Amino acid sequence: MKDWIIREKGFSKEHITLNGNKFICGNGYMGIRGTLEEYEKEHLPAVNLAGIYDKVGDGWREPLNAPNALYTRIRVDGRDYILPEVEASKHEQVLDYRHGIVKRSTTWKTGRGEVTVISEHFAHYTCPHIYCMQYTIQTTFHAEVEVYTGIDADVWDIHGPHYDEITLSESGECILAGAVTHEKGETVAVAEQCGVSFFNEQRVDVQEKKILHHISFISEKEKEVKIEKIAAVYTTQDVTAPEKAALEEVRNAFKKGYGACKKEQIEAWEEHWKTAEVEIEGDKEAMEALNYSLYQLQSIAPRHVESLSIGARGLSGQTYKGAVFWDTEMFMLEYFLYTQPETARTLLKYRIDTLSGAQEKARAYGHKGAFYAWESQEGGYDACTDYNVTDVFTGRPMRTYFKDKQIHISSAVVYGIMRYTNVTGDDSLLKEGGIETILECAAFYDSLLLQKAHTQVYELHDVIGPDEYHERVNNNGYTNRMAKFTFETAVKILREAEEETLQRISNAYPVEELAKRYQEDADRLYLPQPEKDGVVEQFDGYRKLEDVSVDTVRSRLLHEKEYWGGAYGVAAHTQVIKQADVVTWMVMFAEEFSQEILQKNLDYYEPRTEHGSSLSACMYALLFCKCGRPECAYPFFLKSAKADLAGGGKEWAGSVYIGGTHPAAAGGAYMTAVSGFGGVVLKDGKVTVNPKLPESWKKLRFHIRYQNKLYQITETKDSVNVECLQ
Amino acid sequence: MKDWIIREKGFSKEHITLNGNKFICGNGYMGIRGTLEEYEKEHLPAVNLAGIYDKVGDGWREPLNAPNALYTRIRVDGRDYILPEVEASKHEQVLDYRHGIVKRSTTWKTGRGEVTVISEHFAHYTCPHIYCMQYTIQTTFHAEVEVYTGIDADVWDIHGPHYDEITLSESGECILAGAVTHEKGETVAVAEQCGVSFFNEQRVDVQEKKILHHISFISEKEKEVKIEKIAAVYTTQDVTAPEKAALEEVRNAFKKGYGACKKEQIEAWEEHWKTAEVEIEGDKEAMEALNYSLYQLQSIAPRHVESLSIGARGLSGQTYKGAVFWDTEMFMLEYFLYTQPETARTLLKYRIDTLSGAQEKARAYGHKGAFYAWESQEGGYDACTDYNVTDVFTGRPMRTYFKDKQIHISSAVVYGIMRYTNVTGDDSLLKEGGIETILECAAFYDSLLLQKAHTQVYELHDVIGPDEYHERVNNNGYTNRMAKFTFETAVKILREAEEETLQRISNAYPVEELAKRYQEDADRLYLPQPEKDGVVEQFDGYRKLEDVSVDTVRSRLLHEKEYWGGAYGVAAHTQVIKQADVVTWMVMFAEEFSQEILQKNLDYYEPRTEHGSSLSACMYALLFCKCGRPECAYPFFLKSAKADLAGGGKEWAGSVYIGGTHPAAAGGAYMTAVSGFGGVVLKDGKVTVNPKLPESWKKLRFHIRYQNKLYQITETKDSVNVECLQ
Repeated sequence: MKDWIIREKGFSKEHITLNGNKFICGNGYMGIRGTLEEYEKEHLPAVNLAGIYDKVGDGWREPLNAPNALYTRIRVDGRDYILPEVEASKHEQVLDYRHGIVKRSTTWKTGRGEVTVISEHFAHYTCPHIYCMQYTIQTTFHAEVEVYTGIDADVWDIHGPHYDEITLSESGECILAGAVTHEKGETVAVAEQCGVSFFNEQRVDVQEKKILHHISFISEKEKEVKIEKIAAVYTTQDVTAPEKAALEEVRNAFKKGYGACKKEQIEAWEEHWKTAEVEIEGDKEAMEALNYSLYQLQSIAPRHVESLSIGARGLSGQTYKGAVFWDTEMFMLEYFLYTQPETARTLLKYRIDTLSGAQEKARAYGHKGAFYAWESQEGGYDACTDYNVTDVFTGRPMRTYFKDKQIHISSAVVYGIMRYTNVTGDDSLLKEGGIETILECAAFYDSLLLQKAHTQVYELHDVIGPDEYHERVNNNGYTNRMAKFTFETAVKILREAEEETLQRISNAYPVEELAKRYQEDADRLYLPQPEKDGVVEQFDGYRKLEDVSVDTVRSRLLHEKEYWGGAYGVAAHTQVIKQADVVTWMVMFAEEFSQEILQKNLDYYEPRTEHGSSLSACMYALLFCKCGRPECAYPFFLKSAKADLAGGGKEWAGSVYIGGTHPAAAGGAYMTAVSGFGGVVLKDGKVTVNPKLPESWKKLRFHIRYQNKLYQITETKDSVNVECLQ
Repeated sequence: MKDWIIREKGFSKEHITLNGNKFICGNGYMGIRGTLEEYEKEHLPAVNLAGIYDKVGDGWREPLNAPNALYTRIRVDGRDYILPEVEASKHEQVLDYRHGIVKRSTTWKTGRGEVTVISEHFAHYTCPHIYCMQYTIQTTFHAEVEVYTGIDADVWDIHGPHYDEITLSESGECILAGAVTHEKGETVAVAEQCGVSFFNEQRVDVQEKKILHHISFISEKEKEVKIEKIAAVYTTQDVTAPEKAALEEVRNAFKKGYGACKKEQIEAWEEHWKTAEVEIEGDKEAMEALNYSLYQLQSIAPRHVESLSIGARGLSGQTYKGAVFWDTEMFMLEYFLYTQPETARTLLKYRIDTLSGAQEKARAYGHKGAFYAWESQEGGYDACTDYNVTDVFTGRPMRTYFKDKQIHISSAVVYGIMRYTNVTGDDSLLKEGGIETILECAAFYDSLLLQKAHTQVYELHDVIGPDEYHERVNNNGYTNRMAKFTFETAVKILREAEEETLQRISNAYPVEELAKRYQEDADRLYLPQPEKDGVVEQFDGYRKLEDVSVDTVRSRLLHEKEYWGGAYGVAAHTQVIKQADVVTWMVMFAEEFSQEILQKNLDYYEPRTEHGSSLSACMYALLFCKCGRPECAYPFFLKSAKADLAGGGKEWAGSVYIGGTHPAAAGGAYMTAVSGFGGVVLKDGKVTVNPKLPESWKKLRFHIRYQNKLYQITETKDSVNVECLQ
């Protein structure tokens, strides 16, 4: 069994927030931030729930953090031993990311000897509502020990408090917290049961917003006292009586016991890694970082339902409103498609099921079809506001256009559905609303097309492309190409639909007419062409902007936190871009450009890119691979793979926490490894590989699933082996 | 002979700049700011020249101030007596605005008695290069008096210094300053000759950038000493040898003498007022303010050339770059058309002659046809920059879109040419390039038309309308209607052209095809329609903006000088507008709306208008008149008429002077009096009047010229008399 460990020795107050992300665990239903048991809300602990949201007043709408049943603190001889308040003599935090088990070990020195706490916890891989903890106390002396452990319903909220009503109660051996949300009155129920391995006195205390077992004992020298606890979370989105369900499930799991649960956990993850692991010989750093990225992705994979997607910060908290962005389809999807198509299906089913929200948004703007939410929550509600950035100079909210102008989002949905269909060979998504989704997205772009009077060319004006530093531009190449792709897809769908499908949709869609119309749209839509020097202009007029280095632009900042984009940001009137834009287009449609053009654009745009988004690096890495320059790709690959290990991203916007994990970067690292360095191309039912391994990589091995078959691919400098296992 | 006097008693340092505008005189060739003779550049004296510009470094391009030959200062018993440094015991400044003569009288108390200086000066009405001054010194005691008088070439510049080279010399009785500009090496020559009425000693001193007669005498008690001086200005834009011309002209005028020149001045202005004066019985305040406005307009009327226009701040300095805006055609033109069509012709000839500049601008933006300069200088050069406003919070220049998005400017040119043609009945302008100008403007709009694919409706996107607080909007009603007007005009021109014209233009313009095309453009161009409540939306989405009062918006200012518009200004995302916009459209095309719609829009938009432009009030006044509500119009009329009397407009933008006179407001006051209250309509060769006199106006009398006839129109409450005099 492999030993995949992230270990941090010593305690640093500065790392509290970062470690909350780095030592995270989750199972798709919940994400548990890697904080310590004694932390209260100021240190951002969270049992973050997938797909359930709340809004209070004018605050941002955001996902819920469930009452926290890991909460535990100890008191020895009448004194509290908790971090960060009481300095520890030894401290270590560990993540076993092969099995999703988080551990801590802390020793405090007291006047009479040492007190050590060792804990481990995990979100149960196969029981999505369950998480488990073991908490061990050791003292080097006979001490009066008190442990408070139970449920802390005074959760960390960014724009809360989200619970209007909190009920704390006992039910037999269990304690229970029921919390009712502000906006829709949803109930989140958390049940907990714990057992102690040593003679003790117990009572249950209810303090404000906390229900706690108060466990007292006299410790014996060097003898461990173990507390094992199981918690279960249910909400009214899962069942009508979540308290009952939580109690029932926690009792069953507790009967099974912590040890059995942990065994299940390890076995399930081992089973998963059998086909998900990517092995790299010769580059331990890359292998660890990459598989850690896959751990991050797997921890947030919605395996417990059939229709749910992933927020841009995974399940690491309420940041980015827990909302689903284009990140899922464009950056994370490939990992799920290649390792577990059923999860990929769930992600896309969410889009199909939120079509009506997208139609409503389009209507609200006076467009037709489906305009997907830039920041999608349940039902396709767009959580993006018109004022997403605060002006650091005036403190005023700035009008931003992410919501209304970033129209490329709908094409990402189409792209996702088609990739699912092509990679799996399964057309069930198309039949279950996918076709309608695609047609509505095509109708959306169709309704936005402009043509200069008396010409035959269609254009798309007043958009924001992937590079958000340039607002309200015309003919963003990426956006136009993706709209064209949407038209092409719609035509293909209409032309190739089976008779049954045609009959089903023909009431709502005049098939022949639309096929003709969208074909015309695709044919006429303008795409920027390579200029004399081979460079494709990102949008109309881009190359007339000031051509200046990223460093020069940075040197113009008057305030370290000022926004680079918007109408007057330091980058806005220069050629400096936030992230890969033309390069993203070229990654997606590389076959439409010559190698020379790809190279020239890569070399033109890279020095002009700030990489101010974690979505940027992997696109450069991928295009460098496509251009046969893996050594240039490598640092971008590593940056993506280490996004959540290294920290250093933007963590705070003023007083609002915007950190969290970066699953899109993780997905980008996977794409780079498999499709970039690995050179995998899936087409017409065939797997072909054209490796571009970095110098140090002696061997690369991974599995992919393609059209219901499992392939093991092994690449070395000299050989390639594609083996169909099933 | 009527006595039209503006008089200010007492000296106030705070009024120095304001009085520079209020007591201005001019003759179209030059404007002489109403400053005192002893002022040097820090008090903004200027002999501002029409139509000649210079640019230094990155500074704004701006018109020239000629070396100042009014410069005079006195010293008595070895002590200087100058304002504002030495406090005066009596001071008065007077403008005889019937004759364009500016006077001052100042008495200082000395230890030995009083010293009084009395002066008057004027820009010669019929000799455009000449200005004249009489300067009288009286003392109540025998004193040693020294007078320094001559030419101060150390002129006030906003973005100068504009003279790289200054040559100061004597030539016989005259002194001469020759100054060579930085950008194009143009020479500005100023010659001066002066005579003294009393025995004196004289020598000529050249100090740095000044050449001065140093005149010394012992004054006699109560006996005046008179200095009379004549100055002439010529530039290399007038003649190839401007020094020679200036000397020759100054000598001739000096021979004639100050008294004779003054007599000519008075007679010429009297002759002018015979048909230009507007008489109002029963409202002296209105009559004076209105005729003062006409004085302002007449002082800047370019009567000395055949092709020149008027800057938005007249000839009151270098503010607004001395540039020509839509102000001329839309606000000032009517005055000139109705009183002196030949001057109106000169204004429009300037536009025709700068067509190539407009074509160049259109090409630079990738458009076709003629895109006139937003801030037009000689040759149609657009002096407008992309960064016209400074962010008060960051000190950074803000990207503004006046130059590239205020496309309605070209339609103003078309409108001007057609008004000239219709009012005068003279089609010579059309024949001398007017037709081509109109066709090029139509080609411009044609090249901007967008249509939503698969629809037949044309739109204009991404513009700024008259209301500059809302940038980059779609389908601004005013702009669309004016573009439509341009198409309609082009069609009319093409359909009605004479055979000779058709032959002339048919090489460049496919007449039939264009007529058809522009007819289609006009027919298809979208115009916002009245909504359920009768309100016409200013642009797409305007009425979805926050609906909040002007005062509320003002209360949100964090800095008194911050810009209300731009991307994030306090007005930008509200319905508060800078100036009449839909209302301007309705004034121009009132016949296309019902009275009810006019009323409803007036009442909707007026409370939402900040009137942050001096162009705003008169449009409201005109529409109130059209709606039969002269009492509501009256305060707006008075505000326009008093724009340069009352002061209080925006005078400074940071450290840059942006004050000056407001000829568009003056023209707006004229329009309101004649077309608004007076109710004059000129159509099909007939003058009709439909008076809407304010309550207090017992009689309104004025003349207008229409199709080569002069009409005297007299209106009272009970009667209307239209008399054709010629």
